[in-house]
Amino acid sequence: MRSVFSVSPCIRQVAKRQSFSAGINVDKKDDMKRLWHWPIDPLARTVRLALGEKNWSFESIVVRPWSHDLELAALAPGATAPAMTDINADIRMTAIGSLAICEYIEEAEPSPRLLPFNPVDKAEARRLWQWSEENFAGINNTLLDERISQRVRRESEPNSAALRQGAHALNNRLTFLDALSADRPYLAGRHLSLADLSIAAHLSAYDYFGDVPWHTCPDLKSWYARIKSRPSFRALLLDRLENVKPVEHYADLDF
Amino acid sequence: MRSVFSVSPCIRQVAKRQSFSAGINVDKKDDMKRLWHWPIDPLARTVRLALGEKNWSFESIVVRPWSHDLELAALAPGATAPAMTDINADIRMTAIGSLAICEYIEEAEPSPRLLPFNPVDKAEARRLWQWSEENFAGINNTLLDERISQRVRRESEPNSAALRQGAHALNNRLTFLDALSADRPYLAGRHLSLADLSIAAHLSAYDYFGDVPWHTCPDLKSWYARIKSRPSFRALLLDRLENVKPVEHYADLDF
Repeated sequence: MRSVFSVSPCIRQVAKRQSFSAGINVDKKDDMKRLWHWPIDPLARTVRLALGEKNWSFESIVVRPWSHDLELAALAPGATAPAMTDINADIRMTAIGSLAICEYIEEAEPSPRLLPFNPVDKAEARRLWQWSEENFAGINNTLLDERISQRVRRESEPNSAALRQGAHALNNRLTFLDALSADRPYLAGRHLSLADLSIAAHLSAYDYFGDVPWHTCPDLKSWYARIKSRPSFRALLLDRLENVKPVEHYADLDF
Repeated sequence: MRSVFSVSPCIRQVAKRQSFSAGINVDKKDDMKRLWHWPIDPLARTVRLALGEKNWSFESIVVRPWSHDLELAALAPGATAPAMTDINADIRMTAIGSLAICEYIEEAEPSPRLLPFNPVDKAEARRLWQWSEENFAGINNTLLDERISQRVRRESEPNSAALRQGAHALNNRLTFLDALSADRPYLAGRHLSLADLSIAAHLSAYDYFGDVPWHTCPDLKSWYARIKSRPSFRALLLDRLENVKPVEHYADLDF
């Protein structure tokens, strides 16, 4: 139940459009891929990182979670961002949600791999990808929602209980992830996978508001510094939300 | 944040073991597949339905969410149920979590398909599978947790606010699903998929306690009656929790 990420049908807002690449050398100059997304949404960020790793360019259609986009709504009953269409494929492709989009990207473009070939390693990557989405959902609903309500939308009274609850949950997750990253080069094993992208996407959204206590998790911080230096991450580091700048170290690769 | 489904390391309890098949004609008589699960957990039920559809037998290791299983904990850092091992495969396979297990099963045994071959239909199945896990999580945390605390564990004061919140959220989800099932033979389209199994698994857990107002969603009820009649569902209908019987219509195929 991602309250701020559910689309309200009441408020209509013209979506801001811009064409941009994933921030790296673009080999495939087709404009037929479209992504409906909101830049700070961690699940949309996961998708953008996956697109960046595959070097896919796309037309970006920014949809605020509290607005309504008619084209997005027409894609499927109950469609919400992130959603992607790919009309350059053999068939007109629509994929909605981080799971469907990322698995589609991986099947359509197997190289470079974002899910390991070996079934055991692949299962571990999917476990931690699902772990990320399940375990960060409560933090999105509390800590991140509060930051967005107060600083981006500037419309709600601060709810310090929600902030505390989210920060406490985040600390628990960081402890687990710090231990994992002490033992493994990437979170699911020896290779970069969707688990890394999903976890980094969530942490990057919290980090925009300065909410990740990096000093408490040095091994995770080293892992994040490596992920943050990848070309696929550049577009995320350039994101600027209306009304609020990121904390100073947000885009700093040597933070 | 599935509170009742997180494993507490404090309380140790010997896991109840039994070998059983998925409730249908068992072609593959190997005992080398093991599933750690708790019968009422909707994500574990999703996995059992997928195993049943593939006609895979397995050794069942029941792990209560509030207990601790040493073998389960040894599978991976932070491992929780549902978890599966398959040492009959070419390699010793471990898959943890509904996503990793179901995708592994689908790749290891492509027939009968639980994800459509066509990429568009496959993306729609994965969208609604993820929709199910995301949207029912809050109901698991409120309505289902309360039922388990009060009726199975018999240890908490009733929290009527959580019950109301869960029931309200469930009604919203039922409205969406009822509209979908009016238009489609299966929830993601023309064929049974993991979306149907996940949604039916969740509803079946709430239905055990009589918490699904079927009279409000007649088309969804017809869909559920068809899913409930599948051989893969039999084992779920035979589940009996300690301390509490299911409502009368729970196992009734003509409810």
